[in-house]
Amino acid sequence: MNSPITNKATDQLINQSTDQLINFLLSLADSNLILAQRNGEWCGHGPVLEQDIAITNITLDILGQGRNFYQYAAELISQSSGEPATEDSLAYFRTEREFKNLLLCELPKGDWAQSVLRQFFYSIYTKGLYTQLLNSKDDRIAAIAEKSLKEVNYHVRWSSEWIIRMGDGTEESNQRLKNALKYLWPFTGEMFIPADFEKDNGVDLSLVKNEWQKNVQNVFEEATIATPDINMVMQSGGKQGIHTEYMGFILAEMQYLQRTYPNAEW
Amino acid sequence: MNSPITNKATDQLINQSTDQLINFLLSLADSNLILAQRNGEWCGHGPVLEQDIAITNITLDILGQGRNFYQYAAELISQSSGEPATEDSLAYFRTEREFKNLLLCELPKGDWAQSVLRQFFYSIYTKGLYTQLLNSKDDRIAAIAEKSLKEVNYHVRWSSEWIIRMGDGTEESNQRLKNALKYLWPFTGEMFIPADFEKDNGVDLSLVKNEWQKNVQNVFEEATIATPDINMVMQSGGKQGIHTEYMGFILAEMQYLQRTYPNAEW
Repeated sequence: MNSPITNKATDQLINQSTDQLINFLLSLADSNLILAQRNGEWCGHGPVLEQDIAITNITLDILGQGRNFYQYAAELISQSSGEPATEDSLAYFRTEREFKNLLLCELPKGDWAQSVLRQFFYSIYTKGLYTQLLNSKDDRIAAIAEKSLKEVNYHVRWSSEWIIRMGDGTEESNQRLKNALKYLWPFTGEMFIPADFEKDNGVDLSLVKNEWQKNVQNVFEEATIATPDINMVMQSGGKQGIHTEYMGFILAEMQYLQRTYPNAEW
Repeated sequence: MNSPITNKATDQLINQSTDQLINFLLSLADSNLILAQRNGEWCGHGPVLEQDIAITNITLDILGQGRNFYQYAAELISQSSGEPATEDSLAYFRTEREFKNLLLCELPKGDWAQSVLRQFFYSIYTKGLYTQLLNSKDDRIAAIAEKSLKEVNYHVRWSSEWIIRMGDGTEESNQRLKNALKYLWPFTGEMFIPADFEKDNGVDLSLVKNEWQKNVQNVFEEATIATPDINMVMQSGGKQGIHTEYMGFILAEMQYLQRTYPNAEW
């Protein structure tokens, strides 16, 4: 547009871009929070003590990453709307339709193969995404991405080792991994379908997709698992707040306490 | 005894003292594991994101401490009985009567006040106990105690701050803390009633008790909470494998997976 824009229009543009930044931050935070919630179900129920601790540590990492994104979003919301928001109000008082997490993150934990494979897909995805965010024009996002990447690199290593161990393990572990793959694969495509808030914040998901595909394939080859077609028809909707039937139950459990006793610290 | 002891008698003495060392290690491990299990119920259900993370971190610490004691016990059992034991077999395949954890650790998590107060009592107790174990003749125990103390010091600080905040907070928080105190106090005495395996391993619980009482009283004064009588009649039995009605449910949930699919990593 070459026409001069009025002050009002400028304000509107800034508001729009702030809104999209907030939406982007919420989507990043929501995916981490909801996955942490699912992984947290392993807490005290892992197959062996050592792995119980490992997955709980990963859960704490991604919950921490989620908090960083929520905190930034809360500041922006408080500034732009004048209504105070906090990380807790964003986590505990939004409705299902307002959550922008990937559908992949809300699926049931399933068996160990399913939880580990999901973590593997998600960790490789966030590794690519956060690497891109290192160059974000927004310093705060770049800083969160940098901090998160140190943890994500470990999550990629941990989950990759499990994939290889299961794929190249016993007949049963191989079969369970294949079952998990069949179930989860249709939910991986959503990661690479850009939402407006991703485009507006300069994210190029096609680059993330290429990198993801390459990395997944490498690990799958070592695990003697065939990589399914990444261009098949995929499930989507999470980024737009359209969730699976599981989402309501997660929120019901997670938000019950805060909604019943608002701001009570019990 | 001045009479010479035969080789057979020596062997027996060694066996007895190994058994008591194993029992002692199991009691330390069990208390940590069962408390971790109870605290783990907060995972994803804490009152605010920050505290959800804090209690889960503490849970991981004490689970880690439990594992160190189990691992040592497993080595001793494998050596002395010839039957292989592992940290997982000790956690997942013993019966309720074989668990030697404090009753305090198996009580329900209750509300936030109850969980935090229990953690406070337990952390101050283990701080005193592990400090004594630094001087253990058994180098391995001294090393585990040293490593654990670094974590326990933080747990004491964290839980003390919460006690003060709740006691000296609102009317409701003060009342909830008092309710928790009324419920938990009768279970604190067991910590200081020495079992044979504690006496045989040179632990002096009367020293731990004095130190504990002093520390609890200091924090309670700051929290404007009256310290109950430490010499009242107390519940006991955990160290001897006589547990509350809650214990069976904890084990059922914790051991279900391993008992149903022995050694399966799912």
